[in-house]
Amino acid sequence: MTHVKHMKWWGWGVDGVGFHHEDKPGFAPFVQMAVGIDVNSTASALASFDDVTVPESRASSEFVTTLRGIVGESNATTDAMERVVHTFGKSVRDLIRVRSGRLDRTPDVVVYPADEAEVQQIVDAAVAADAVIIPFGGGSNIVGSLEPLATEARTVISLDLGRLNRVLDIDEGSGLARIEAGALGPDLEAQLTAKGWTLGHFPDSFTHSTLGGWVATRSSGMQSDKYGDIADIARGLRVVRPDGTLVIRAIPSASTGPNVREMIVGSEGRLGVITEVTVQVHRIPAVREIIAYLFPNWKAGLEAMHAISESDATPSVTRVSDARETGFSFATSKESKGISKMVTQGLQRFLKAKGWKIDQMCLSFIGYEGSASHVARQKKIVGAIVKKHGGIAIGKGPGVLYDQKKFDTPYLRDFLLDRGAAADVSETAAPWAKLATVYDNAFAAANGAYKEIGVDGWIMAHLSHSYHTGACLYFTFAFAHNDEPLAQYDVVKSSIQQSFIDSGATISHHHGVGLEHAPWLEQDISSGGVAVMQGLFDATDPKGTFNPGKIIAR
Amino acid sequence: MTHVKHMKWWGWGVDGVGFHHEDKPGFAPFVQMAVGIDVNSTASALASFDDVTVPESRASSEFVTTLRGIVGESNATTDAMERVVHTFGKSVRDLIRVRSGRLDRTPDVVVYPADEAEVQQIVDAAVAADAVIIPFGGGSNIVGSLEPLATEARTVISLDLGRLNRVLDIDEGSGLARIEAGALGPDLEAQLTAKGWTLGHFPDSFTHSTLGGWVATRSSGMQSDKYGDIADIARGLRVVRPDGTLVIRAIPSASTGPNVREMIVGSEGRLGVITEVTVQVHRIPAVREIIAYLFPNWKAGLEAMHAISESDATPSVTRVSDARETGFSFATSKESKGISKMVTQGLQRFLKAKGWKIDQMCLSFIGYEGSASHVARQKKIVGAIVKKHGGIAIGKGPGVLYDQKKFDTPYLRDFLLDRGAAADVSETAAPWAKLATVYDNAFAAANGAYKEIGVDGWIMAHLSHSYHTGACLYFTFAFAHNDEPLAQYDVVKSSIQQSFIDSGATISHHHGVGLEHAPWLEQDISSGGVAVMQGLFDATDPKGTFNPGKIIAR
Repeated sequence: MTHVKHMKWWGWGVDGVGFHHEDKPGFAPFVQMAVGIDVNSTASALASFDDVTVPESRASSEFVTTLRGIVGESNATTDAMERVVHTFGKSVRDLIRVRSGRLDRTPDVVVYPADEAEVQQIVDAAVAADAVIIPFGGGSNIVGSLEPLATEARTVISLDLGRLNRVLDIDEGSGLARIEAGALGPDLEAQLTAKGWTLGHFPDSFTHSTLGGWVATRSSGMQSDKYGDIADIARGLRVVRPDGTLVIRAIPSASTGPNVREMIVGSEGRLGVITEVTVQVHRIPAVREIIAYLFPNWKAGLEAMHAISESDATPSVTRVSDARETGFSFATSKESKGISKMVTQGLQRFLKAKGWKIDQMCLSFIGYEGSASHVARQKKIVGAIVKKHGGIAIGKGPGVLYDQKKFDTPYLRDFLLDRGAAADVSETAAPWAKLATVYDNAFAAANGAYKEIGVDGWIMAHLSHSYHTGACLYFTFAFAHNDEPLAQYDVVKSSIQQSFIDSGATISHHHGVGLEHAPWLEQDISSGGVAVMQGLFDATDPKGTFNPGKIIAR
Repeated sequence: MTHVKHMKWWGWGVDGVGFHHEDKPGFAPFVQMAVGIDVNSTASALASFDDVTVPESRASSEFVTTLRGIVGESNATTDAMERVVHTFGKSVRDLIRVRSGRLDRTPDVVVYPADEAEVQQIVDAAVAADAVIIPFGGGSNIVGSLEPLATEARTVISLDLGRLNRVLDIDEGSGLARIEAGALGPDLEAQLTAKGWTLGHFPDSFTHSTLGGWVATRSSGMQSDKYGDIADIARGLRVVRPDGTLVIRAIPSASTGPNVREMIVGSEGRLGVITEVTVQVHRIPAVREIIAYLFPNWKAGLEAMHAISESDATPSVTRVSDARETGFSFATSKESKGISKMVTQGLQRFLKAKGWKIDQMCLSFIGYEGSASHVARQKKIVGAIVKKHGGIAIGKGPGVLYDQKKFDTPYLRDFLLDRGAAADVSETAAPWAKLATVYDNAFAAANGAYKEIGVDGWIMAHLSHSYHTGACLYFTFAFAHNDEPLAQYDVVKSSIQQSFIDSGATISHHHGVGLEHAPWLEQDISSGGVAVMQGLFDATDPKGTFNPGKIIAR
């Protein structure tokens, strides 16, 4: 079989790696407090793949033979495990379903093309056979963009881009790199770093997501304040469609009508298969630092982030956690180092003496990049703003730790799920003036939902990704579920999403729409906006070959 | 009649204002050298409007009555002058045609709605009557976006947004302003300035172009390095369509599928009528300076601009003229002040002593904005880069003058046209590594075209609008035309546009597509890109109500 590696069929990341709390004494009491679960009780036994009832592939042997004729014998498969791995992303809904063996519909065949020419042949074969194509990158999606519709009667192909994983070319004179769409974050970053460049795109999913996936879902990385969202980063595109390859050349900015590049970005497979992206890349900066700060409360933290974004500081990262997520950060840090070490009993006494309430304080990370003198100046500007808003700097240590551990959080979700707690995230963006209300309303919505389903649930949030006019708010929620976790989850998730809309925020800042957020799209971009998007899909894909039903439910 | 003011029917700007050269002794010899014309010879007499044969309006009296029922008696007109004013933009092709009375087709009726509700009624009436709507802002378009197709048999409405000219609201907490689409640059900037804000969008057309027009054509202003292109600035939109108003709320960034906002931006009226835009606005900076520099040659200037864009300087303006445009700047500056004053005989001797060739030197303007300390630091970083590339600073004076006079250049075109020279512009954008080639090839193309049509023509250029991966090149060309100026112009313009494509550049950085650039769109964004865009237009406007034939010629 192909050499392309995948995450665990039942959870995040690679086999043998998981969340552990033995060295984090604050963790067990925190979880007990937050969701009422004793993490030291026995975890449920993992489902065995033998217990999963995998629907038969509906692909005809002729069609599989056709695909094998294109990609080679070993790169088209109807193997059950392969089809299960390609059925879902990694949302908690996905994990709950796959762990309980609830598979209504899997892809019928998984193909691994070697290059764009093979992608074109697969697309042509799919159109000829009236099959469905769902492009697949790293499989980290959490909004239902990857699963076949339960009602889909046609043959479904999961088109895995994993073999298209090379940095093809770096135009050092322009800061542009041509990269194949299936390259995973660490792989492409390693190829760039070897030549002194970085993409600067580090979403939380970085280790298990691909460039093509980032483009297809409008991803944003933690350093987006400096490097931009993927919509800014992706300058050129190659997209395989039934009439050939659509080519958007890497032009810095153009006045050539409705922006086709911006139609492909976020299209989640509905406009074709992205095979190559020309991205802007940056020289690795001389200095890169993340400094941790504490603010006396959420309001002060929010206002400081806004002031920083309005200042001349231009940091690479602006992030502040609310008091609850700050507590979570303390609880998940090792006793011997990191945040716990910095925020000593002595510091806490000092802050109390200043009038702070320790349970209100908010942890912030601000990132700086550039020449040494530039970073020094950035820090000086930010330092003055932090001080003005009553905050204090607590140093580089926690920032370094945050930087090292930022991609590990998803493992925690599996740990909790093993112990009866469902956890997931909802993220949004809104203008600065609305953020406090968006935050309050999301909390009220989650707590109302917890009451409705009769659990003591948890919700916490941070602000990240600042723009001139607003920022992203990122909520994490968890609750001890009963034996209908999906129904409970839907109540909580729906309440939070509706609160976003009702507060003037968007349904997603960087996770995409898929099936999960589709019910709110019309409230977000208006019926006229949906009609225009629907017109685009209908006109460009009349047979519904490309990931039908995603973004818009038809 | 309505109070909405328009530019001269035969040229740029307002009556009574024009280009004069009495105080610019270098001008006459320069024009003689460049295009072989004696500007002191008698100008041709301006065409009288009485000599223009204006086609009859094809609007039925019933339809005009319907429109008057919507907007009031005085705000829907079939008046000949009104229809002529709304027939063209202000490209040299437009000026040549209107001055010679060559009007194949004018709009049949001009309407001035008071608000969005009236726009909706006009759209509904147009759809019901199978009429055509061409939205009209300030009328400064130079790519043929405003003219009715010569073959159009249906009633054509020019929908003038001039009465929708208010800043409706400023969200000071978010830096967002809601502004009606018909507001002219100076009007909206005055309303913002009164409250301490600026849009920061200053295209060369600023005094005679509107917010809605900027959005519809993907405009870019001279300070785009800091404030962004209009696609970045326009966060929210209201667009009247047959099924109601499409509303994109002002969200800083969203992951909601193909970007509908980016479909409306640049749509040149084909997706509906933009009535309101929510833009990001900025506090007026404490300090704003434009400093002039000289570089020994074009190559040094280009490389310095690239180095500045890669540095931590983040200026608001990066601009460098080639040696020919530098000569033009000297020739059009007053003897007593400005560039001529700064670049004295003494300075020239000094530069010659340094080994410079005076006819190779290139004038550059770099803009700085922010706090005093920020600007000081920006200037220091840029200063070091300029020095490294062999350049020198020549001070603030020319920058101030450039800032004051930058919107006056279009008047010069009328002056030349009165004296037998056709002048226009072509602008493009490309990655940094390609810019030198794009420049060389455009020159070769223009000179080849001049040879073909048998004239001694002129072409000059500047770089402006820097991005991480590239920049805009802006070419101005002129030649003494014969009695077939349009045919001659087409040879020159086409040669330059084709050279852009052949050199890896785009057909337009910020002027749009219209009719003028449409022949090259497929070569720019590929047949697949055009097919996607065509699908969008066909699906959303099946009757071809909205500015048909623009961007894509069907």
